[in-house]
Amino acid sequence: MNLPNALTYSHTLLSECVGPGDTVVDATVGNGHDTLFLANQVGRTGRVIGFDIQPAALKATQTQLTLTGLASQVDLHATGHEHVGEFLTADTLITGAIFNLGYLPGGDKSLITRPNTTLSAVKVLLAHLRRGGRIILVVYSGHPGGQTEQEAVVAFCQQLPQRTYQVLRYGFINQIHHPPFLLAIERR
Amino acid sequence: MNLPNALTYSHTLLSECVGPGDTVVDATVGNGHDTLFLANQVGRTGRVIGFDIQPAALKATQTQLTLTGLASQVDLHATGHEHVGEFLTADTLITGAIFNLGYLPGGDKSLITRPNTTLSAVKVLLAHLRRGGRIILVVYSGHPGGQTEQEAVVAFCQQLPQRTYQVLRYGFINQIHHPPFLLAIERR
Repeated sequence: MNLPNALTYSHTLLSECVGPGDTVVDATVGNGHDTLFLANQVGRTGRVIGFDIQPAALKATQTQLTLTGLASQVDLHATGHEHVGEFLTADTLITGAIFNLGYLPGGDKSLITRPNTTLSAVKVLLAHLRRGGRIILVVYSGHPGGQTEQEAVVAFCQQLPQRTYQVLRYGFINQIHHPPFLLAIERR
Repeated sequence: MNLPNALTYSHTLLSECVGPGDTVVDATVGNGHDTLFLANQVGRTGRVIGFDIQPAALKATQTQLTLTGLASQVDLHATGHEHVGEFLTADTLITGAIFNLGYLPGGDKSLITRPNTTLSAVKVLLAHLRRGGRIILVVYSGHPGGQTEQEAVVAFCQQLPQRTYQVLRYGFINQIHHPPFLLAIERR
């Protein structure tokens, strides 16, 4: 068994807090890897709300969901995750959310997540996070703009009140290139 | 389930790589918490080699080991962990080692681990680490001298070649006081 990388560990952390019937958010649908994982976790009685601004990514993910019989519990929205609040009622509680920051691998590298919209979405999600629920951010910093976003996201997380939240940082520190690291915000 | 703290996670990481019959090192015996954990993991056919410069800590740990029937697989040494090489034959392979840096809680707070001796021991242990084995450092930085040691240990870990080692850093980033964080060096 090797130490899991940030992507693998993100699913471990979500599998511990997301179960059948839950409502969860995939803030960056991309290739749909997390969407399918979450759809499996919440089952037919749950709900995954997914966001992406790239229609091709949503279309490919929708196809995968249909082929795997997971479409009924997933709603995909062709808009940025900063609009997540429009798709949650005031009393909606989520048990998990995931962000893959940066650009979509294999997609348009000029389309990147941005600190302002990322943090807008995180703030909305925090207000809907159930106790024990977790918001996971997989943070890439090797691309142009990535370092700035990383700093903004880490700074935001560091000031979250420790009475209400625990914020874990998990990542490898001896790699020459910029491997992603993980931030996990858990509501106490 | 809450996000585990560094101490709890250190045992999770060791339980994944240490098994019956293995040889392991407790570099800072202290209150014996890790020693007993490791003695359980390696069983009667394994060996735990423990170090501490505080005789009272070793004596209390020896008593606990005897009372729990774990004494036969543990050798405690009243010397600093920088001497670990004197207790390993050239062909000894270890699957795990743990350091709790800083001072012994409840002990003499002026007796702290130091960057030079800590890193001397880590270097010796790296040469004996089996593939898949892990050296874990639980790093405290809130005490005088702690920040210096933290920086030295992190800098050392960052330059370990990624072809041979993975180094994970795991810790909470939104706590006002200085909670310990964890470094895990895994040999590929």
